[in-house]
Order: sequence, then C-alpha cells, then structure tokens
Amino acid sequence: MELCQVAVYGCGTVGLGVCRILLSPGPLHERTGDSIRLKYVVDGRTEELAAELPKDRGVILTDDLEAPLRDPEVGVVVELFGGTTTARTVIEKALAAGKDVVTANKALLAEHGDELFRFARAHGRSIAFEASVAGGIPVIGSIRRGLISDPIESIYGIVNGTCNYVLTEMDERGLSYEDAVAEAQRRGYAEADPRLDVEGVDSAHKLAVLVRLAFGVRVRLEDIPCEGISGVDRRDIEYARGLGYTLKLLAVAVRRDERLELSVYPALLHRDHPVAVTGGVYNAICIHAGHAGELVMTGMGAGRLPTASAVVSDIAAIALGKYPMHFSRLSQFGDVPAADLVPQAEFVKRFYLCMECVDSPGALGKVATILGEEGISIASVHQQEVGEGLEAAPVVFMTHKACEGAVDRALDRISRLSIVPGGRPRMLRVEDV
Amino acid sequence: MELCQVAVYGCGTVGLGVCRILLSPGPLHERTGDSIRLKYVVDGRTEELAAELPKDRGVILTDDLEAPLRDPEVGVVVELFGGTTTARTVIEKALAAGKDVVTANKALLAEHGDELFRFARAHGRSIAFEASVAGGIPVIGSIRRGLISDPIESIYGIVNGTCNYVLTEMDERGLSYEDAVAEAQRRGYAEADPRLDVEGVDSAHKLAVLVRLAFGVRVRLEDIPCEGISGVDRRDIEYARGLGYTLKLLAVAVRRDERLELSVYPALLHRDHPVAVTGGVYNAICIHAGHAGELVMTGMGAGRLPTASAVVSDIAAIALGKYPMHFSRLSQFGDVPAADLVPQAEFVKRFYLCMECVDSPGALGKVATILGEEGISIASVHQQEVGEGLEAAPVVFMTHKACEGAVDRALDRISRLSIVPGGRPRMLRVEDV
Repeated sequence: MELCQVAVYGCGTVGLGVCRILLSPGPLHERTGDSIRLKYVVDGRTEELAAELPKDRGVILTDDLEAPLRDPEVGVVVELFGGTTTARTVIEKALAAGKDVVTANKALLAEHGDELFRFARAHGRSIAFEASVAGGIPVIGSIRRGLISDPIESIYGIVNGTCNYVLTEMDERGLSYEDAVAEAQRRGYAEADPRLDVEGVDSAHKLAVLVRLAFGVRVRLEDIPCEGISGVDRRDIEYARGLGYTLKLLAVAVRRDERLELSVYPALLHRDHPVAVTGGVYNAICIHAGHAGELVMTGMGAGRLPTASAVVSDIAAIALGKYPMHFSRLSQFGDVPAADLVPQAEFVKRFYLCMECVDSPGALGKVATILGEEGISIASVHQQEVGEGLEAAPVVFMTHKACEGAVDRALDRISRLSIVPGGRPRMLRVEDV
Repeated sequence: MELCQVAVYGCGTVGLGVCRILLSPGPLHERTGDSIRLKYVVDGRTEELAAELPKDRGVILTDDLEAPLRDPEVGVVVELFGGTTTARTVIEKALAAGKDVVTANKALLAEHGDELFRFARAHGRSIAFEASVAGGIPVIGSIRRGLISDPIESIYGIVNGTCNYVLTEMDERGLSYEDAVAEAQRRGYAEADPRLDVEGVDSAHKLAVLVRLAFGVRVRLEDIPCEGISGVDRRDIEYARGLGYTLKLLAVAVRRDERLELSVYPALLHRDHPVAVTGGVYNAICIHAGHAGELVMTGMGAGRLPTASAVVSDIAAIALGKYPMHFSRLSQFGDVPAADLVPQAEFVKRFYLCMECVDSPGALGKVATILGEEGISIASVHQQEVGEGLEAAPVVFMTHKACEGAVDRALDRISRLSIVPGGRPRMLRVEDV
C-alpha cells in the first residue's frame, strides 16, 4: 500500500497525542499495514519537543511552516494550531500545495468553513474534521456516513465538557458557579480564561459545524442565539432537581418544517433522559433521524488521547483513500444555501420561571393572570421554602408549550409587579425535542 | 458522478425499507447527487411486491436470482434473504460476478465470515455489513473508522432488542417471562419461534462480528459461552432492583492481557449505567477504547427503517467508492488469527447468588463457610421476605470478585445442603467491566 506521510502543525496537548499514536506500534499500524508515517512536526518549541518525542523515528522537528508544504512526500497536513489566523493560512497553503488537511479547529470551520471547503474542492483536496466536535465520539462520521440517507429531525446535546463539569459539580456537590469553575481550572478542564467555554461560544462553533453536515445549510455564528452558564443560579439547579430535571448546557438544532431552530443555552432535561445522565466532562449527542430513529452517543468530548484518536481516524481515512472521495462528492461540502432560521421570539418550548413572590393573598393570581393574558398556560406551580429572614418566597412556574416572545413580554410585565420584589423572574427552557 | 445501480435480494421488512429509501426523493439523493439507483428487486413474491413499490421508477421485479448478476450495470448486490444457504450462494455468485455486496446477515457472517471475506478479497470485491449489528446504531463504522487507532479494551452491550423488551416488561410491569414474550410477539418484536433471540444465539452472532472488527481475531460461535433469558426468574429481577441493579442480556468481549473473554448472558448492571437505562427494544453498546475512552451508543437495534438506514449507508459508501478500498486494506478483513479465549471457569466477576435457605441458626453460616472454602468473598447478604406458606426464605449473596469455576463448585456443594431445600442456587453475573 502507498505510504501516507503526515505533517503535524502544532504540538500542544492534542498534537502530542497524535504524534505518540503515529509513532507507537499499535492497532493503527497493524490494521492499516504500516501505511501511515509521521514525517514533520511543526512547532516553535522544537527543543522542548525533541525531549518529548522518540529520537530514532526520523521525524523532522521544525518551526518552518513552509518546509512540509514543499515536500512532495507529505500527503496530509494536520492543523492543530487553533485560532483563525495562522491556522487558516496553513490550511490554505497546504491545500494549494496539493495536501489533504485534517483539523480540529471548530472556530475556524464555524467562521470560515464555506470559503475553506470551496477552496479545498477547487484544488481537488479535502478537509477532514472529526475531532472538531465531541473529541472521542465519532459523531461527524456517523452523520456523514451512517445517516447518509436519513432526514435529520433534530440534533442536540452537550458538546462542551468544561461546562458539563461545572454544572455537574454545582448539581452533585452543591458548589457555587465560581467554585465549580475554579475546580475545573485546578483540574485542567478549564482554561485560565474560560469565557469561550462558559459563554457558550465553543458550543455554538460546534453546532455550526454539525448543522452544515446534518442539514446541508450554512449558518453564521452571530445568528445562533447563545447563552452560557455564567448566569446560572445554583438555586435553580436545586429547584429543578426537585421537579425531576437536570440542567445542562445544550447546543440545539431542530427542524421546524422548512426552517431550523438553533440555539445554545442552559436547559432543563428530564433526569431520565440519556443526555441528562451524562455528567462530568463527558459529552452526549442525541440525534433524531428520520429512518434510524433516536440515536444517542456519549463519550469523552475532549482531552489529549480522545481528540487525538479522532484526528488519527481522519488521517487514516485519507491514507486509505476514501475521505477525499467523500469530500469531493457529498453535497454538504459543496456550496450550500444559508439556513432559514426560526427567530428566537418564535421558539415554542416549555419554560421554567422562577420569581421571588410576596406571600400575600392574590399574589400568585396576579402573576397567573399576566401569563394567561400572554397566552402562556401553566402546567404546575411550586412554592419553594422561604429563605430565612425573607418576606418573598421563591415560586417556580412550569409552563406548557409557549412562545418565547410571549414569555419575554410576560416576564417584563411581571418584573414590574410590586409583589415580585426581586426583579425580573429567572427563565430556563425545558428541552423535550 | 458515476451511477451506482443496485439489486436488492429479499424484499421483506428490511428490504422493503431499503427499496423505499432508494426510490424516494430525499436526503440520500440530495447528498450524493442522485448517484444511486435501484434496478432490481429479487423476490419470489413479485406480484405482491408490484403493488407495494412505485410503478414508474423502472425497477425490475424478478424471481430470477441470476438476472442481476448477468447485468454489467449492477454494481451492488444487497443480500437480505437471511439464512445461511441461499444467502451464501447469492453472495458468492455476486462477488464472482464482480459486484460488491451489502448484507445484514449476522448469522452468515458469524458462521462463514472468514471464507466469505477471503472470497471477496480474492475477487477484488467487498462485503459491507453495518446493518448486521444494532440496526440504526452505526457501531460497525465507528469501530472500523472512528476507532481505527484505538486498542479496544472491551465492548459489550445490549444487541438484541427482543430480549431487552422482554426484560424491560418483566422489570417495569412485573410480567412473567411467558407473558412478556407473548406481549413481544403481539407487538411484532418477537418471532413466532423466538428461540434465536431469547436463547442468546442472535446476540452471539453479533458478538462474533464485533469481535473480528474490534480485536482482529476470528471466533467460532460454539466457543462463545451463551446463555439466554428463558431461564430468568422474575424474582431475581425484583431482588436485583432492590440492590440497585437492572438485569440485561449482554454480549460481552473483554481483553484480558493477550486473551479475550467472550460471553452472552443475562447480567446485572448498576442502574445508573448508561446501558442499564436503555429499555424497551433499544440497543446499547459500550466500548472502552484505549485512546477515545468510554463510548456509549444507544439507538434502535432493529425495525424496518433503522436497519434499512444502515443498509443504505453501506450502499452509499460503495457508491462513493470508499468502502471497497477500506475492505481491501484493513487487516480485520484479511486472514486473522483465531482468538485465544479465557475459559469460562476462569472468568473473574462479581456474582449474585440467590437460594432458598431454611431459617435456622447457623444456616447462613454453613453457606458462608462453603463460599469461603472456595475462595469466594462475600460483599453483602440480603434475606428477602419469606413467601407465604414457605419455610425457607430467599437469601441473596453478593460476592466480591471471584472465579466462575469456584462459584460453580460452591453452588454444587451448597445445593446438597439440607438447609437449602430449593435445589441449586440461582446465579447471575454482575458486569462492571
């Protein structure tokens, strides 16, 4: 079999995992008959890396971005720099030089996937990106290949392990948001600056990548309503648990007739739901497929070896000659139309509304009246225990399906009631797609 | 793109699903640019089928097994006859005639996979079989491609929806085994003769297919210890639930150093385990992969459209040109060594042992002494309520890890004790790989 030679750009956590898999004897080489070889590692820290990698394997360590591109023996360039500037340059130059590309860069794909895919096809090359969503879970491949004949009705789940770890710690150990984030940082699950994760941006990037594959449309990042977990109140997690729900940061895409409803937000899932039982840094993705039915995949969404495993699976797919063919032929990688999105005000969901309400006769009635006037039907009302020294008791309203715009209007009106002294009620969506 | 023309052999439940997907406008044709066309349906019931399939699509209905094989336009033969005689002949003739083959036939692959794979490679063709295990769950593709660099430590799960339905009904609705099977038959989840399912043979077939892919070895069906659910006692489900466990029919493959431990049996799983929460006709597969970590996939394991979706994904993989390359190159499809199996007597697990024990001083002590003498350490003992009019009370022993051979010897000895009048204690394995 023809030897496929690889250049890895960026040898951080994931890159080092990729190098170790490529350089170790093991299943990859047994299964593929030694047809893949690591030839270059491109990284500024060449001296440091020389100590990390085996010396006798003939790997060329360099900080010269161009060297592997000039080498006709290199067939695959693996971009693991991250970011959207140098990474993009490297990918474009690699494609132009006739290399196939593997990347884990969801930010780049979410923001510039269209141009990059078009560029790759124009040069007769391919871009593979299994590692860009949910690390060790082969979700990209499962949609692209396993569900190739399936109309996708919805795809949603937990695609950010950092947020899931934080929410799990808040739920199971009763930590505050701040303490849970600090714990995640201490364990290396969160960056020093965790904003990309906790504000939901990373999840939105991944959702954009999934949506293109699942629905064959492109979506601009700024069009995905995105809410993170930094505003989550520990009390809501506790009240929700009392009602049988677990709070998860979800990325959600649902087909509504010819339009798509996209969003990233903390949402309540019934605790028996397979996505709800996924705790810690694990990821979980639920797909409702027109033929295959409901499919749930859970696994490691990040980390050195899970992500490296996904990167290497793409390298192998190219080495075995099959990925580029897929890329050149499937419509999702070609010019796709823009998504026709449901505006957030038209989302129809059940809602959890929590407000501090003065314990006086008729108080609940006033709230209920406003909800009724806005067309929001109440499924249940739960008064929580009054905090010590407080006059207002937290009251949770669970609604039937209602329109998000109507809920917004109702909350504006309720926040002006004198019997609701705590300000605007807190709102969480209940996901039961 | 070149047109890939398909002949479907056998138009029963799944076959009709495949035909409908191939004949309908939809995602398959959009995504692949109309590159797949159904040309032949081969089935004895040509008149019946003429009414079921659209007339204006130019599909040739025939009961002539040879016609599609003589047609040079046909590139893919889909074998959905089932069984191991005609099906095998069709597959071999198709391969010899230069066609690639797609099949859902786990029995045939488990029994004759070696010869068929060798035959296919000798003719430069391929056999694809995503639909042979767990219908709508793309587990074959995920192992073959997504986990291509991963050493697999274990793979286990629920791969028979009929048994899972029966056990779920027994657990959740308290039905007897017989009533649950009757209910499954009434709903079309079980055959009139359900033995292949309930005796575990179907699960063993699927395990053999998975083992070859995951571990690169071949295994003879008769070497897989196989126990079905027909001997399951409803009381054990109830007692196990009281201890926090759920009973599932599992197919299990675990690497123990250089050997493999394979088995099919009803086993207790902790009720929080993602496989344990998979009820009804759903399947669930858990893979511990050396790099990717723990991966769990749940979904529809059977049924017309889920299985058809998997069949069509294989057709598309061939049409896009990539599957045959994979098949010709991956070592798992070549000549693989025989598995080196751990004998069942050497399995090391935790065990659930339930016996009727006379309520006399020292009775439990005698049982405990025998267990101790056989090197079996007791984790906990639970006396259940005595049934009305009975002198002996059911007692459950949960053991620490012990050797199955030792447990067998202990149960032989215990069954001869006069204080255990009910015969040989019932034994179930606790799975916590």
